[in-house]
Amino acid sequence: MQTPKFFLKIKSSIENFLHNEELKRKLYTIIFEADTKAGKRFDVLLMVFILLSVLVVVVESLEVVANRFKLVFQVFEYVFTGFFTIEYLVRIYCSPKPKKYIFSFFGIVDLISTLPMYLGFLFQGARYFIIFRTFRLIRVFRVFKLFTFISEGHLLLKSLYESSRKIIVFFLFVIILVVSIGTLMYMIEGTTPNTQFTDIPTSIYWAIVTMTTVGYGDITPVTTIGRALSAFVMLLGYTIIAVPTGIVSAEMVKGYKKQAQKKCVHCGKSGHEADASFCKYCGESLNDL
Amino acid sequence: MQTPKFFLKIKSSIENFLHNEELKRKLYTIIFEADTKAGKRFDVLLMVFILLSVLVVVVESLEVVANRFKLVFQVFEYVFTGFFTIEYLVRIYCSPKPKKYIFSFFGIVDLISTLPMYLGFLFQGARYFIIFRTFRLIRVFRVFKLFTFISEGHLLLKSLYESSRKIIVFFLFVIILVVSIGTLMYMIEGTTPNTQFTDIPTSIYWAIVTMTTVGYGDITPVTTIGRALSAFVMLLGYTIIAVPTGIVSAEMVKGYKKQAQKKCVHCGKSGHEADASFCKYCGESLNDL
Amino acid sequence: MQTPKFFLKIKSSIENFLHNEELKRKLYTIIFEADTKAGKRFDVLLMVFILLSVLVVVVESLEVVANRFKLVFQVFEYVFTGFFTIEYLVRIYCSPKPKKYIFSFFGIVDLISTLPMYLGFLFQGARYFIIFRTFRLIRVFRVFKLFTFISEGHLLLKSLYESSRKIIVFFLFVIILVVSIGTLMYMIEGTTPNTQFTDIPTSIYWAIVTMTTVGYGDITPVTTIGRALSAFVMLLGYTIIAVPTGIVSAEMVKGYKKQAQKKCVHCGKSGHEADASFCKYCGESLNDL
Amino acid sequence: MQTPKFFLKIKSSIENFLHNEELKRKLYTIIFEADTKAGKRFDVLLMVFILLSVLVVVVESLEVVANRFKLVFQVFEYVFTGFFTIEYLVRIYCSPKPKKYIFSFFGIVDLISTLPMYLGFLFQGARYFIIFRTFRLIRVFRVFKLFTFISEGHLLLKSLYESSRKIIVFFLFVIILVVSIGTLMYMIEGTTPNTQFTDIPTSIYWAIVTMTTVGYGDITPVTTIGRALSAFVMLLGYTIIAVPTGIVSAEMVKGYKKQAQKKCVHCGKSGHEADASFCKYCGESLNDL
Repeated sequence: MQTPKFFLKIKSSIENFLHNEELKRKLYTIIFEADTKAGKRFDVLLMVFILLSVLVVVVESLEVVANRFKLVFQVFEYVFTGFFTIEYLVRIYCSPKPKKYIFSFFGIVDLISTLPMYLGFLFQGARYFIIFRTFRLIRVFRVFKLFTFISEGHLLLKSLYESSRKIIVFFLFVIILVVSIGTLMYMIEGTTPNTQFTDIPTSIYWAIVTMTTVGYGDITPVTTIGRALSAFVMLLGYTIIAVPTGIVSAEMVKGYKKQAQKKCVHCGKSGHEADASFCKYCGESLNDL
Repeated sequence: MQTPKFFLKIKSSIENFLHNEELKRKLYTIIFEADTKAGKRFDVLLMVFILLSVLVVVVESLEVVANRFKLVFQVFEYVFTGFFTIEYLVRIYCSPKPKKYIFSFFGIVDLISTLPMYLGFLFQGARYFIIFRTFRLIRVFRVFKLFTFISEGHLLLKSLYESSRKIIVFFLFVIILVVSIGTLMYMIEGTTPNTQFTDIPTSIYWAIVTMTTVGYGDITPVTTIGRALSAFVMLLGYTIIAVPTGIVSAEMVKGYKKQAQKKCVHCGKSGHEADASFCKYCGESLNDL
Repeated sequence: MQTPKFFLKIKSSIENFLHNEELKRKLYTIIFEADTKAGKRFDVLLMVFILLSVLVVVVESLEVVANRFKLVFQVFEYVFTGFFTIEYLVRIYCSPKPKKYIFSFFGIVDLISTLPMYLGFLFQGARYFIIFRTFRLIRVFRVFKLFTFISEGHLLLKSLYESSRKIIVFFLFVIILVVSIGTLMYMIEGTTPNTQFTDIPTSIYWAIVTMTTVGYGDITPVTTIGRALSAFVMLLGYTIIAVPTGIVSAEMVKGYKKQAQKKCVHCGKSGHEADASFCKYCGESLNDL
Repeated sequence: MQTPKFFLKIKSSIENFLHNEELKRKLYTIIFEADTKAGKRFDVLLMVFILLSVLVVVVESLEVVANRFKLVFQVFEYVFTGFFTIEYLVRIYCSPKPKKYIFSFFGIVDLISTLPMYLGFLFQGARYFIIFRTFRLIRVFRVFKLFTFISEGHLLLKSLYESSRKIIVFFLFVIILVVSIGTLMYMIEGTTPNTQFTDIPTSIYWAIVTMTTVGYGDITPVTTIGRALSAFVMLLGYTIIAVPTGIVSAEMVKGYKKQAQKKCVHCGKSGHEADASFCKYCGESLNDL
């Protein structure tokens, strides 16, 4: 019979496809790398698609636009979702270790950014997951081969990580402060007629708005004592903003110094002054490579 | 007679209880320390109770909630106060030096945070002392054995303490400035019809709101000269915010350097460079312990 | 005749008074110095008078208070002016070089802060010069013998002075920026009906309010392009605030380092590391005095 | 015939004028340099004209003024444009390399700042290009021979340039953040009746206003969850402002150090400590010139 043969053919061709290492390698170079001409082109195209898909969501929310071009946006959304779905599947296909990709940061971001439309059939609002696509923009650094940019980013993140414990202590302090001040303010202003400090959560919200020097002005004290406390909170916030800044600055000054220090190829010890010519531990030249 | 015997028995059992050093030690390990399993459990329970008691006060202030569940909150408050009262008494009981505990920072915070309900019978508003309970959250660091966090906090506080004199000088300058600017603004804007600068304290409040870059917008200048002065105050505030930040940053850079310096075990002198292997004062190895 | 004799007596006693060096020295120790008990007492009294006189002006501006206690404030003002006038005259009298005092910073501040009431007879509003009295509070540092505070203040001022040229360049840049942005915004938003950007000065005022992150909200853009420019200005202001902060921080780090450096008594050269024991230029001990 | 001779005369006098190297040199010293008395006078005059022309545009926008003195402003504008046109032509004339001047930064600024009135005949609004004249104020530094100021400016710009890559990474992060937060906020607050979060661009605008701590208050959250997110955004913005500040501070500390380092005239190596007397690479004196 022909049918089994036909099915076998399909089966074998699928298997061939699934194990076509050369195709996989080719696709991998295009999709995951940016060294070849085709790879660069693909990455630029991807960037454009991501930016467009984000733009469409943003523009669609405008009332004037939404009513008129409803169909256009629907079509756009279908196109983008189709493209991103295929791209996601191809990425899994050509990845040497598919599982590693799926559970990597970019793997998860890629998945979430293709889901919105599918989820949109099930429940409303899900389509706003589209905004996860913005995270995909981080890939832009690779496209333009801005490796140094990535290293800059790493230095930034390292400085933040190194100072994270100090910043957590600082935040716990700030949170205890705003809860206390919010409650105090509720006691002071809460009894005034037509007060804007209607409850403690609102007062805590006010304390945060004031201490971070945002100052919307939607909730403002009207009593003299409330204003005095308010002024105190402002001056406090104005001063303690110096703390995280000081932490990060000091960490970066330290980071710069470390970055400048070379490593001796003879004894392996680092920590030399930026201008040293000889290793201070073993006396060998630092400029040997 | 039996009665005296009975009373004696009670008296002796109370005395036994008061001098039961083993029980005291056991309770001390549970309540004051966090090294044992029981101690950890107690601390976590305490954290939960503190957080809940603060949450109850915050939620209760919401009008929608307060009217419906008045009784529930009352019961919660009785439970929390009961728990904290017993905890406070047990802390005094099992403390080796009760007086030292009572007058310590945490002792006073513990007392104030149990009082609100009792004081609430006497005068209204006292129950907001409950917010002092948030300060008890500082204990959280001990629970999770985050000793390093405490040392980070110490470094922060030390940096702030070291720079406190400079910051006080800065604040005196800021206060003289806002009083002067407030008065000047009252002279400029105070005569405009329907002005928001109704008196000098209000104008000083405005000056603080503006200089700290909070900018509520509840009081804004309307005259051209008032706006010009206002713009000057903003630029001033925008610039002098650099001063406390600069102070704290410089102090922290200094603090980091000190922290990195080792102490020689041979001659006892500290102040070595972070990467030195030998003491620069006596020539002995810095790595001997 | 007796009259000439009587006049001569007066004349001589006035001359005696004017040249009574001992009295002068005594008064000088009390008024200008704060080392003796009497000197301290006088300085504290002066502080209280200055604070009270400022407080009176501030409180008087409150409408509720002003109408009721008009006479009380009048009396207060007479007393303060009398006291400060006498104090000013005595300062001139007992000063060894009166001219130097009169034209010194404090001399001018002392004069201006006694004038308000006298000028008040001539033209209204002059009485607000009273606020100059706040500057006299700077004397507080001397009262409490906070010499170190003054040195802290000097270090602060020196850091600001050293970085003043950079800050001036920064400000020129900011001013050119806000004028340009203000004009641009007037072009964009100025044609909208009921716009708040009524003219270019108002738009420049808005640009300053926005760039310094004050954000009153009395003038806000409503068009899409206006909001986009506005967002750009905010991000710009948010970033360039780093510049003066960076300048002052760097200057202070430098200042700290200099402060830590000792001076060699043998060769007179300074610039040693903070932990050096021997002069690196001449090899002599740095600890010799 | 006389006519050709007459034309030849004109032609030769024009050619003489165009190649009059002495006149060119004289004009160049006056217009481009500020070392001679005439040069200084010209520069001060130019500054006054620039400032006046900017002031006229600013003042003209005031409604009260514009209607009354329309003709006066017209005349002013003709005078300024005439002056700047002649100045521009003379600059081209006396410049040794006219093309280089025309396409230099100042050359372009000079051209744009003379064009507004001419373009004003063609289309409205063009006259606001006048504001480009403010950029010409940068010349002020040369007038007062503030060369050191220019070097300060260079150091500032260099610090900013060195840290520009880090700041770009930071900005990409901020932009992704505000787009995400804006969309999230639109989902949360957008369904509330009479909401101010009418569409996603508006919500992104709100996110920028909040994160930069500007806080106009024209758009504020009203739901509890919206306020909670809002508070989070504020605290985030309050903290991450530390990042650019830290970057610039660290860069400036580094810049200062480099500035302090001398260069050895013997071996050409730089990187000596600020207080070194001898080159640490070749041992020769650093003070030889």
